[in-house]
Amino acid sequence: MISRVMSAELAEHAGQRVTIAGWVHRRRRLKSVSFLVVRDRAGLAQIVGAGDLPVEESVVEVTGTVTAGSQAPGGFELVAPEIEVLAEPVAAPPFDLYRPVVPAALPTILDHAPVALRHPRLKAPLEISAASVAGFRETLDGLGFTEIHTPKIVASATESGANVFGIDYFGRPAYLAQSPQFYKQAMVGVFERVYEVGPVFRAEPHDTVRHLAQYTSLDAELGFVRDHRDVMTIVRAAVAGMLESVRRHAASAVDLLDVALPEVPAEIPAIHFTEAQRLTGEFEPDLSPAQERLLSEWALREHGSEFLFVTGYPMSKRPFYTHPDPGRPGYTNGFDLLFRGLELVTGGQRLHRYEDYTKALAERGEDPEPYEGYLQAFRYGMPPHGGFALGLERWTARLTGAANIRQTTAFPRDLHRLTP
Amino acid sequence: MISRVMSAELAEHAGQRVTIAGWVHRRRRLKSVSFLVVRDRAGLAQIVGAGDLPVEESVVEVTGTVTAGSQAPGGFELVAPEIEVLAEPVAAPPFDLYRPVVPAALPTILDHAPVALRHPRLKAPLEISAASVAGFRETLDGLGFTEIHTPKIVASATESGANVFGIDYFGRPAYLAQSPQFYKQAMVGVFERVYEVGPVFRAEPHDTVRHLAQYTSLDAELGFVRDHRDVMTIVRAAVAGMLESVRRHAASAVDLLDVALPEVPAEIPAIHFTEAQRLTGEFEPDLSPAQERLLSEWALREHGSEFLFVTGYPMSKRPFYTHPDPGRPGYTNGFDLLFRGLELVTGGQRLHRYEDYTKALAERGEDPEPYEGYLQAFRYGMPPHGGFALGLERWTARLTGAANIRQTTAFPRDLHRLTP
Repeated sequence: MISRVMSAELAEHAGQRVTIAGWVHRRRRLKSVSFLVVRDRAGLAQIVGAGDLPVEESVVEVTGTVTAGSQAPGGFELVAPEIEVLAEPVAAPPFDLYRPVVPAALPTILDHAPVALRHPRLKAPLEISAASVAGFRETLDGLGFTEIHTPKIVASATESGANVFGIDYFGRPAYLAQSPQFYKQAMVGVFERVYEVGPVFRAEPHDTVRHLAQYTSLDAELGFVRDHRDVMTIVRAAVAGMLESVRRHAASAVDLLDVALPEVPAEIPAIHFTEAQRLTGEFEPDLSPAQERLLSEWALREHGSEFLFVTGYPMSKRPFYTHPDPGRPGYTNGFDLLFRGLELVTGGQRLHRYEDYTKALAERGEDPEPYEGYLQAFRYGMPPHGGFALGLERWTARLTGAANIRQTTAFPRDLHRLTP
Repeated sequence: MISRVMSAELAEHAGQRVTIAGWVHRRRRLKSVSFLVVRDRAGLAQIVGAGDLPVEESVVEVTGTVTAGSQAPGGFELVAPEIEVLAEPVAAPPFDLYRPVVPAALPTILDHAPVALRHPRLKAPLEISAASVAGFRETLDGLGFTEIHTPKIVASATESGANVFGIDYFGRPAYLAQSPQFYKQAMVGVFERVYEVGPVFRAEPHDTVRHLAQYTSLDAELGFVRDHRDVMTIVRAAVAGMLESVRRHAASAVDLLDVALPEVPAEIPAIHFTEAQRLTGEFEPDLSPAQERLLSEWALREHGSEFLFVTGYPMSKRPFYTHPDPGRPGYTNGFDLLFRGLELVTGGQRLHRYEDYTKALAERGEDPEPYEGYLQAFRYGMPPHGGFALGLERWTARLTGAANIRQTTAFPRDLHRLTP
């Protein structure tokens, strides 16, 4: 590798002559002295007293003497620099990357993602996202889960019917998977506890701040549960592990964006759907965004929790594989986790008996034939099981307070956007 | 959760009455005594002296007294059992899951994957695969890499042109990504060091034992390299980390399949392409499978290594973004890693200057317009960089000696197979 120290390590080399490498983040020539700020993957370093100042986004190696400097990031800067330019930009960025606040609107940012994401505030959500996924995996690994990789090309648009992308599969019609639901359930029969982190696809015809055509789904499924409450225990552990990982591995991004990381209560409060209806005074078979906000406010007020489980959603609003609540006809063992006013996780206990599946499909008037591969798993003995899915981008958006989900993924795909 | 101990923990509970849960792996009634073998995610447990014996693949909870038993897996078994059946299969599996050798041909296995993968020998490759990915991530996390998630739906079939799946994207043509190549390079500008583990798609029109229409690609890319040799250092670290993780986390799968895990030399031997030609006596601009086998044999003989880097592939056989070898016209800073006679990794140094890209495209007679989004990154200053890709299924196949790559993934997709 190019022999270098990282910007964040300058303090360890006080008085020494070292080489750093990175991008020219900013150059400034004052009357008596010049400053160069170099950005590398660890942060920023200040160089004082350069003669020629390469333009912003030049890639440079700078050798200099590490000296205490009260105005420098981390308290140390390089003086008496020699600068080598490794690569020069052929154009100026569409906006100044060194401004503390991003001086550009979202379309400009998205159109120029490869350069725009270099802005510390724009890459910070991606750091938080990466740390979150690491925490999700670490937690589930520790609980005996096995990671799986499942097909993204499927034969039938079974799970929701609507909003699937069609694909030409060697001349046959096929579809992009909207979730790994059927596969993760089947793999409970193999590993008992499985998870997958991967892309899912929704041909979402609406242009909203909450929807993407491709997003990263954090999916888990586990067997030998008593009911959905055991799944909720795992959700709690996963979310706490994600936050702990963000705290440990994305601290500077959290600081930069001034993110207030929530506490996860030892037991996240839960409220039954019917009680949630009563509390909010609306009685539709699903919760409206306004209701979700009210419920989150209620949980914070009553339980001091930014998280709230809503359990027992009505059968009519949950997929056919949802396990009914044995004690309450018409309601399910399905739940959502609300976080800061929005649904973050959907999960529940699933049916596990073959005959319950054929019956559930018949009751909904569905032809069982396209479900043939799916139903196989249940034909051969499946334990009571359940699972959940968490949308990574939505999580990061809620955490960072991003107004638009497109700010939480590097290269979003939506109704209008297919590049870069 | 259902309160239970795992099969592998019986020894810790000698003399106690405990409950286990799992699938009936096998039932046997001898003249004087009956045996039930129960399979859970940790292994097998033997139950002696049950009255009714549920059929194979029944899901059961068994409470019994832990007793030493010389014939039992792990040396302990359950006696005086009480059995509760949680779910009954409605059909017998297509083959006996308890036979030590799988008594079925590959098409039967693949058609019945949800139940077939319960066979310990068929799920073992997936355990090795999961441990490998964990080791890949752990190694790169430790080296300052950031995990990214990139679009699987792209606007143009730029990277190879052939073998792409077309998709209907809100009425516009789009394609499934054949690799995250362009995106991971762009993200070097943001994080310097990035990796992605995700699905890639190849509309491979040939039905071979080596190709899948969807596979899991382990991709990494890093900036501030001197040349391709720095990338090879990272490849070596990643592969060693993957093997170490397999050793630690998939030991029983390794034992069951009798896998001989290779040693990774501190420095993997490397041979230049022209020298590889000379050694094998063939002079085509790419290596044939026979040459790759010969070269692997040579490396083992001469260097005691099951791994061999071949460097300096000719320009004509590498993609346009490959960095040429400055000292050797016509050859590149691209490399392959051979493992046990097959190419396992492809990588190299990439071009990093904008003008080199436009020149390279012009030389190949390609219109730069579809590359617009890709070229953006280079317009704004990019460091010397390189990276590599490793196909997870191919790795697992080589490691386990699987004759067909379809044995290393749960639900393969190929020219003919779109289900289950």
